[in-house]
Amino acid sequence: MAETYNPRRTAVLLVDPYNDFISEGGKAWPRLEPVAKEVGLLDNLRSVVTSARQGGVRVMFVPHRRWEPGDYETWAYPNPTQQSIRTRHSFARGTWGGEFHPDFQPQAEDIVIHEHWAQSGFTNTDLDLQLKQHGISHVVAVGVLANTCVESTSRIAMELGYHVTLVRDATAAYLPEMMHAAHELNGPTFAHSIVTTAEVVAAFEEARSGAA
Amino acid sequence: MAETYNPRRTAVLLVDPYNDFISEGGKAWPRLEPVAKEVGLLDNLRSVVTSARQGGVRVMFVPHRRWEPGDYETWAYPNPTQQSIRTRHSFARGTWGGEFHPDFQPQAEDIVIHEHWAQSGFTNTDLDLQLKQHGISHVVAVGVLANTCVESTSRIAMELGYHVTLVRDATAAYLPEMMHAAHELNGPTFAHSIVTTAEVVAAFEEARSGAA
Amino acid sequence: MAETYNPRRTAVLLVDPYNDFISEGGKAWPRLEPVAKEVGLLDNLRSVVTSARQGGVRVMFVPHRRWEPGDYETWAYPNPTQQSIRTRHSFARGTWGGEFHPDFQPQAEDIVIHEHWAQSGFTNTDLDLQLKQHGISHVVAVGVLANTCVESTSRIAMELGYHVTLVRDATAAYLPEMMHAAHELNGPTFAHSIVTTAEVVAAFEEARSGAA
Amino acid sequence: MAETYNPRRTAVLLVDPYNDFISEGGKAWPRLEPVAKEVGLLDNLRSVVTSARQGGVRVMFVPHRRWEPGDYETWAYPNPTQQSIRTRHSFARGTWGGEFHPDFQPQAEDIVIHEHWAQSGFTNTDLDLQLKQHGISHVVAVGVLANTCVESTSRIAMELGYHVTLVRDATAAYLPEMMHAAHELNGPTFAHSIVTTAEVVAAFEEARSGAA
Repeated sequence: MAETYNPRRTAVLLVDPYNDFISEGGKAWPRLEPVAKEVGLLDNLRSVVTSARQGGVRVMFVPHRRWEPGDYETWAYPNPTQQSIRTRHSFARGTWGGEFHPDFQPQAEDIVIHEHWAQSGFTNTDLDLQLKQHGISHVVAVGVLANTCVESTSRIAMELGYHVTLVRDATAAYLPEMMHAAHELNGPTFAHSIVTTAEVVAAFEEARSGAA
Repeated sequence: MAETYNPRRTAVLLVDPYNDFISEGGKAWPRLEPVAKEVGLLDNLRSVVTSARQGGVRVMFVPHRRWEPGDYETWAYPNPTQQSIRTRHSFARGTWGGEFHPDFQPQAEDIVIHEHWAQSGFTNTDLDLQLKQHGISHVVAVGVLANTCVESTSRIAMELGYHVTLVRDATAAYLPEMMHAAHELNGPTFAHSIVTTAEVVAAFEEARSGAA
Repeated sequence: MAETYNPRRTAVLLVDPYNDFISEGGKAWPRLEPVAKEVGLLDNLRSVVTSARQGGVRVMFVPHRRWEPGDYETWAYPNPTQQSIRTRHSFARGTWGGEFHPDFQPQAEDIVIHEHWAQSGFTNTDLDLQLKQHGISHVVAVGVLANTCVESTSRIAMELGYHVTLVRDATAAYLPEMMHAAHELNGPTFAHSIVTTAEVVAAFEEARSGAA
Repeated sequence: MAETYNPRRTAVLLVDPYNDFISEGGKAWPRLEPVAKEVGLLDNLRSVVTSARQGGVRVMFVPHRRWEPGDYETWAYPNPTQQSIRTRHSFARGTWGGEFHPDFQPQAEDIVIHEHWAQSGFTNTDLDLQLKQHGISHVVAVGVLANTCVESTSRIAMELGYHVTLVRDATAAYLPEMMHAAHELNGPTFAHSIVTTAEVVAAFEEARSGAA
């Protein structure tokens, strides 16, 4: 089902586009690579972001906490992923792995949200505030991982009253069955729309013409 | 891995134990029945709740919005489940389907949380406040559905800083692969512990002896 | 400074219009009466609510927790007001004091928000969700008390990204200096507009004509 | 009334100790200086922070957004203070005014919370999460301003279930009547304890001995 988007009320949420996740040589890239290549993740992310900017749809970066020395050391209950980050130093601040992929650098019109500590880009951050202050009612969540940060951010977006679109080939996960869970099992219970990159790009181009 | 629980700092979150979900004749029971029977849902819920109360672990009811006429009619973006509820009138207030299963009635020491509109028992409710006011740091989430309300409540519990336990046979879902997604694919990324009813009951009994 | 309001994006937040607060014979009325009568509270609340409904501005009831037996008994840190309510049983559920004043009864188009436990109508409730689902960006906070529930609700409304209007004579407090604090000392730091009932009624009538 | 504090469950929230606020030459210092000097703000802040650290009470920095070019320019509803900051560039990032006062520099054990955009150190930040992950139930709010950021942070702390202490001479405001409003009119409705620096320092020293 085709969605239409009012560009002034829509934002792309670009989740965790770190080198450690989506660049050759990144710490998590080997685990992500099979699914990422199968769906065409990088090309599709480029298409979504480019067509969003051309259509006047605001792009918001939703970045994970960049690891720093001391992180989680004094916490009572770090989650399994955070415990792993303590060892692996994923997205370490000041390192290449903790930089955004070169093709996904914030532009002047973009908003960079405060770093999230766990999976949800909303919880403990200013994402809801920035969406409200920019008049956004519709969010299109892309980036990684499909079943963790993208899914938790999208689940909460729905809880908070936003219209939520998932893009099944502008995200990736460690296993194909995680993609299946995100888009066939769980997504249909909370997302208002689950589309392909081609569909969302077409909708953004339509929005652009409509606005012209 | 065995967890230990301090009963004064632990709560069982009993999610949506409505007749419409878990009783013969309930609107959603036919879809839930195969998995529920396979895991022994009802017996296990009874065991968890009984052992919690005996061990001094507080039980909190985390109920979904009971449908009322007018619900979602004026909302901009009801989610797919809410759109379905508009037609099916699940958990309708004042009907048998919207009552808690007879074996899961709030007792004097229990807390009944405000009804949640979507999947997360935390968002738009007083659950976090009630947990704090009762000194709770550890939550054990049981009830239904494994991949929707139980999962969203548990994901957010972790986001908010709680220690989260899932109980793989004290919950159910519409499909076995949804159970697999909840406990094998997604749960391990956010939950601190994923156990069986037998394990959590043993832990609660141990807590009870320890407290004695 | 005159504000203009788009009626489809504006809501009146009617805070705690309980008999115990604003009706002769209410438990807190004797403390509130001097300021309430000086500003013309009841007449002004009627004017704001009536003009809102006529102008297509949605009215949302933002009610305090109605006291029930057991409330706060097991809480670790009830606040001073909650400790007092434990003794005085303010707004007791099932009593006249816990009913809304007869002139402020929810109508079909109104929304009744979940009860708040403390001062903020947002925290631990579904107010933010209901505002989003109804497309609201502007809130006009009226009711009682000016420096507690109305002020906390308004402070948080601003924190969450809403445009906030205070109405200086459609609220009341126990002391004139509390009104002064709310509208001259604190309000100007967080509210976008601080007006009189006459001004907000004029703005709502203008909105009505504009919409016609 | 004397409070006692368990140092492992208590945190000092040090709100906005920027040069622009509390140092000679700071942009807002001239407005703050009369009250600050009357209450002995700087000496008292030093006493609270020092005694906290010595007593094993964790110090959390709760900093306002440091102004950057572009801030608030695209926002729909910046509040009056934010509109003023757009012009005055208070706490500008990379300037002396946006640095913490030299006597209030984060130490290894301290936690620096994400910057807040408005008044509440909780809303849109990770403060609640950090408190939970460090097992904190009691917060002692000091810093500036008494009736804006300190008050909003404290009001929300109470809403979220924390025990809240205000320290009447370890804060300041632009006018004496704002101090009066914060501590005599509003504070008593939400704070669990309102004390002096001497009292809180004594309590922290007692906690230290108790812990020894």
